Amino acid sequence: MTTNEKALKLHEEWKGKISTTSKCSVQSREDLALAYTPGVAEPCKVIANDKEAAYKYTIKSNTVAVISDGSAVLGLGNIGPLAAMPVMEGKAVLFKEFGGVNAFPICLDTQETEEIIKTIVNIAPAFGGINLEDISAPRCFEIEERLKELLDIPVFHDDQHGTAIVVLAGIINALKVVKKQKEDCYIVVNGAGSAGIAITKLLFNYGFKNIVMCDKSGILSKDTPDLNWMQKQMMDVTNLSNKKGSLADALTGADIFVGVSAPNIVTKEMVSSMNKDSILFAMANPVPEIMPDLAKEAGAKVVGTGRSDFPNQVNNVVAFPGIFRGALEGRATQITEEMKLAAALAIAGLVDENDLREDNIMPEAFDPRVAAVVSEAVKSHI
Amino acid sequence: MTTNEKALKLHEEWKGKISTTSKCSVQSREDLALAYTPGVAEPCKVIANDKEAAYKYTIKSNTVAVISDGSAVLGLGNIGPLAAMPVMEGKAVLFKEFGGVNAFPICLDTQETEEIIKTIVNIAPAFGGINLEDISAPRCFEIEERLKELLDIPVFHDDQHGTAIVVLAGIINALKVVKKQKEDCYIVVNGAGSAGIAITKLLFNYGFKNIVMCDKSGILSKDTPDLNWMQKQMMDVTNLSNKKGSLADALTGADIFVGVSAPNIVTKEMVSSMNKDSILFAMANPVPEIMPDLAKEAGAKVVGTGRSDFPNQVNNVVAFPGIFRGALEGRATQITEEMKLAAALAIAGLVDENDLREDNIMPEAFDPRVAAVVSEAVKSHI
Repeated sequence: MTTNEKALKLHEEWKGKISTTSKCSVQSREDLALAYTPGVAEPCKVIANDKEAAYKYTIKSNTVAVISDGSAVLGLGNIGPLAAMPVMEGKAVLFKEFGGVNAFPICLDTQETEEIIKTIVNIAPAFGGINLEDISAPRCFEIEERLKELLDIPVFHDDQHGTAIVVLAGIINALKVVKKQKEDCYIVVNGAGSAGIAITKLLFNYGFKNIVMCDKSGILSKDTPDLNWMQKQMMDVTNLSNKKGSLADALTGADIFVGVSAPNIVTKEMVSSMNKDSILFAMANPVPEIMPDLAKEAGAKVVGTGRSDFPNQVNNVVAFPGIFRGALEGRATQITEEMKLAAALAIAGLVDENDLREDNIMPEAFDPRVAAVVSEAVKSHI
Repeated sequence: MTTNEKALKLHEEWKGKISTTSKCSVQSREDLALAYTPGVAEPCKVIANDKEAAYKYTIKSNTVAVISDGSAVLGLGNIGPLAAMPVMEGKAVLFKEFGGVNAFPICLDTQETEEIIKTIVNIAPAFGGINLEDISAPRCFEIEERLKELLDIPVFHDDQHGTAIVVLAGIINALKVVKKQKEDCYIVVNGAGSAGIAITKLLFNYGFKNIVMCDKSGILSKDTPDLNWMQKQMMDVTNLSNKKGSLADALTGADIFVGVSAPNIVTKEMVSSMNKDSILFAMANPVPEIMPDLAKEAGAKVVGTGRSDFPNQVNNVVAFPGIFRGALEGRATQITEEMKLAAALAIAGLVDENDLREDNIMPEAFDPRVAAVVSEAVKSHI
């Protein structure tokens, strides 16, 4: 049986990958009187007088909503809310297993920005945080920004920021391997959707200066037609020399390539045209922009992908569980840029300097230290 | 320590009465590949082509949302969504422990009818059923009716229908004890909110003919000012002789009293004025409309309350877990009147005819047979 066949069979056996369980016993009348009526009225009354007490008496203190409208699911595209459920349930599993955070999947039967925002605001009371997932760009930017303004709990679009954090962590360690300084690096980010834009922003915030974004049409510049509002904003900080041309043109002389785009679109020739000791994060999944062995043959020094069967797997699971765990424990009201940078540095720091090699720049997803270390990094920046 | 003090302390220890748990292991890369990417894409693709498959591969098959706007919580009134959380979590615990149904609390940060409806429709995909809770009348009627039209999953307002089902179950058995026929009984229902109206409707559907509703102002008739639209509808079927007067006037000659109203408002004199072998369900909680011992002294034959420290506890927990379990197992798209009647008969039938006595008309809430029997009754009417 292939992995895919096995996965389908297992999903049928699971009939849902999470369940809700009770933390209190209801075996006797006394139990009922304590967990339900009349005793339950006591915490209700306390919260009615002091909203903050919800963190003391309810699941709000440790529960995240995993919310999608099903518009940009994995590599599958706009498959709608019902079909997105297995992914959101999987994410809820990862939150719990890696971060100890309760998470519940909410799949929205609307793809209108205003309705999504209103719906999420309306259901927010039960939750201590909102993890947005697989919402297509550029709507995801507005939805996240508006929710951050409207809600007093952390809102985090993992496709953007989770990806950006792990890519930055990888780049931090890759630079140590190739002994380059961030100020000197020229970076090409291919893919100008939610992940590509968030990566670019975080790289700037970390201190990179020279980034060019590309998409299917090639290099993006101020003169590129049909840019969305967020891409236009990005043109104020990227490609300041106003380069034009193809991805191949962009890559000539580049130190770092980050792909969040499509399979097999980077050739060996393109890699050969990059600077010495080049770094590639080819994150298209499951088939990367270029296979690691080809990139290496063409002269790349460090190659990361989203795959678990190659070295240097760049996997969001090392970020989001710890980030929310830290934000919830520290009662953060937002996930700030400082927290994201701290999380990236913490993830990078998990690979001991002595163990750092071109094929060992990322901590293992299953490293039990990861969530705790990321959580502490986030908490120390609240 | 009092029960209330103990309840508050326990709620602080629990920090939320439910948690989400994973049904699948994510201990290895292979686990991850099956439960998350890339394997998770398989059930997603199947569901994208056939929505029905969501019941095969996701939590939708066995998960209910417990939804409130916090507008009418227990006896506490409009305390808002955050303060309602302990009650909704408690309900979620009961769904799981008594019915084996996953349930998640959703407390809404809006009390506008249209927004509530839209929000619930928008979050419905993840759920196999919607249990509405503690929403004030008359909004609850419109919200439930509209959701039933808009959604293809069961929608059930437990304050209305759960209460109606258990009261009817109690009345069915009480009539056996006092050997009266439903056609001959004159019933007074005191309280014309969500529960009182739903009880009255279900009693009519069961075959009672003569019911008078009262509220704080006394007997409700066509001429009562300021009736809401649902109460006006009820005047087409109740109080056909157009009685006027107080609750005391209504109770003169009554066979059955059902109170979903306020503490201590029924006097011994009122009970004495009822027909021989009178039946009282004094459901105000925690202090009933009249204490059972007083009612008995005044001549009542059967007295039920919401309390666990008196005989004949009338408790919704014998209804809703089994009702949703049956509806989910049978893939019902609605909870119909036939299902409610069948559930009431099934609950009543759990008390063996040989054990039936004036102080033993209801099955125990903890009777392990209850949810299964109710579930089967519901399923046989899909």
